[in-house]
Amino acid sequence: MKLYSYWRSTAAYRVRIALNLKQAQYDIIPVHLVKNGGEQLKEKYKEINPQKLVPALKTKESGTLTQSMAIIEYLDEVLPGHNLLPDNAADRAFIRSLSQLVCCDIHPINNLRVLKYLTGEMLLSQDQKSTWYEHWVLEGLLAFEQRLKNRNRGGRYCLGSEPGMADCCLVSQLYNAHRFDISIANFSEIRRIEENCLKLEAFDKARPENQVDAE
Amino acid sequence: MKLYSYWRSTAAYRVRIALNLKQAQYDIIPVHLVKNGGEQLKEKYKEINPQKLVPALKTKESGTLTQSMAIIEYLDEVLPGHNLLPDNAADRAFIRSLSQLVCCDIHPINNLRVLKYLTGEMLLSQDQKSTWYEHWVLEGLLAFEQRLKNRNRGGRYCLGSEPGMADCCLVSQLYNAHRFDISIANFSEIRRIEENCLKLEAFDKARPENQVDAE
Repeated sequence: MKLYSYWRSTAAYRVRIALNLKQAQYDIIPVHLVKNGGEQLKEKYKEINPQKLVPALKTKESGTLTQSMAIIEYLDEVLPGHNLLPDNAADRAFIRSLSQLVCCDIHPINNLRVLKYLTGEMLLSQDQKSTWYEHWVLEGLLAFEQRLKNRNRGGRYCLGSEPGMADCCLVSQLYNAHRFDISIANFSEIRRIEENCLKLEAFDKARPENQVDAE
Repeated sequence: MKLYSYWRSTAAYRVRIALNLKQAQYDIIPVHLVKNGGEQLKEKYKEINPQKLVPALKTKESGTLTQSMAIIEYLDEVLPGHNLLPDNAADRAFIRSLSQLVCCDIHPINNLRVLKYLTGEMLLSQDQKSTWYEHWVLEGLLAFEQRLKNRNRGGRYCLGSEPGMADCCLVSQLYNAHRFDISIANFSEIRRIEENCLKLEAFDKARPENQVDAE
């Protein structure tokens, strides 16, 4: 398999963790989101993903897949080993919901293309951009923390004794929050889970700074 | 089951279609997103969904579920009848990816709370808000159209001979696009699918204007 990835993309980071948890063999094809006006915007990459976003996963069996959560669920369905989603329907709904809290309601409002549009087309200042970023990430993490408290207080991971899809989404989002200097000091559940995850090789190998295209 | 819903919420609309396709029995509990500063922001609703968003689905078996795609997948897993996701993993990845294109990369950037924040905290004008809305919805629909052309040109629905999760997401998003006067004239694949879906009772019953709380 080949993963179209950018070291700092949190959506690609999610999928890298999932691939590692599944012990999948894969090659990284770097797509530089900044250099030359963004390689993801070129015709060549649009043929791979018409959305002009990373990640995309090229597979022998199923062609090229896009959207990080769809890719993670695919990997979980076709590869043996470590389960990324729990066995019963209610637990799966909980894990998917936590994952979507991050992947729908934090990340897309704060990703590169949106931040660029805010300062470019909408003429907002860098300060306003930072206020925007902080608002949506804290709004999301606050709800994430509350949902952990309601359902799985004190858990080692988002649910159960092994990390899964929601942990992939959470840890990569936190990398982004740290990068923008957002304090997560008040989120004790989230902080514990992050710490537990980052001890694992699958998460460590997927870190932005450990990528071939890291700068 | 009880669905916390608002007639104009496209995320709730998605789930209403799915419930109808599954021929599920459910009651609507209206949550007014505008009146009194927004009922979804009150303590009472935050206990139901800490994210302060609709929809939420209250079930006897699994407690209260949130996030529209997680709810739809749950319904598909626990209820018999009409399948909302296809049988094989590659097709499921395609349908999830189309669904996420809408539910991650169009809707959350353009939903009520974000538009309010743009004009409120960020002090953008109504014109700028409209430019913002149009940009993200067209960007998303263009990619959706291209993906249909690449994979399922001429299809009656997003995939196969029955509507599924991606159709729920697409049709509800289009309602919102029409409401904001966005032309979809150039999207022939999307337009055909919308027309086919809206002929079905499950979609028709779920329409905003057919809800108990429609104004």
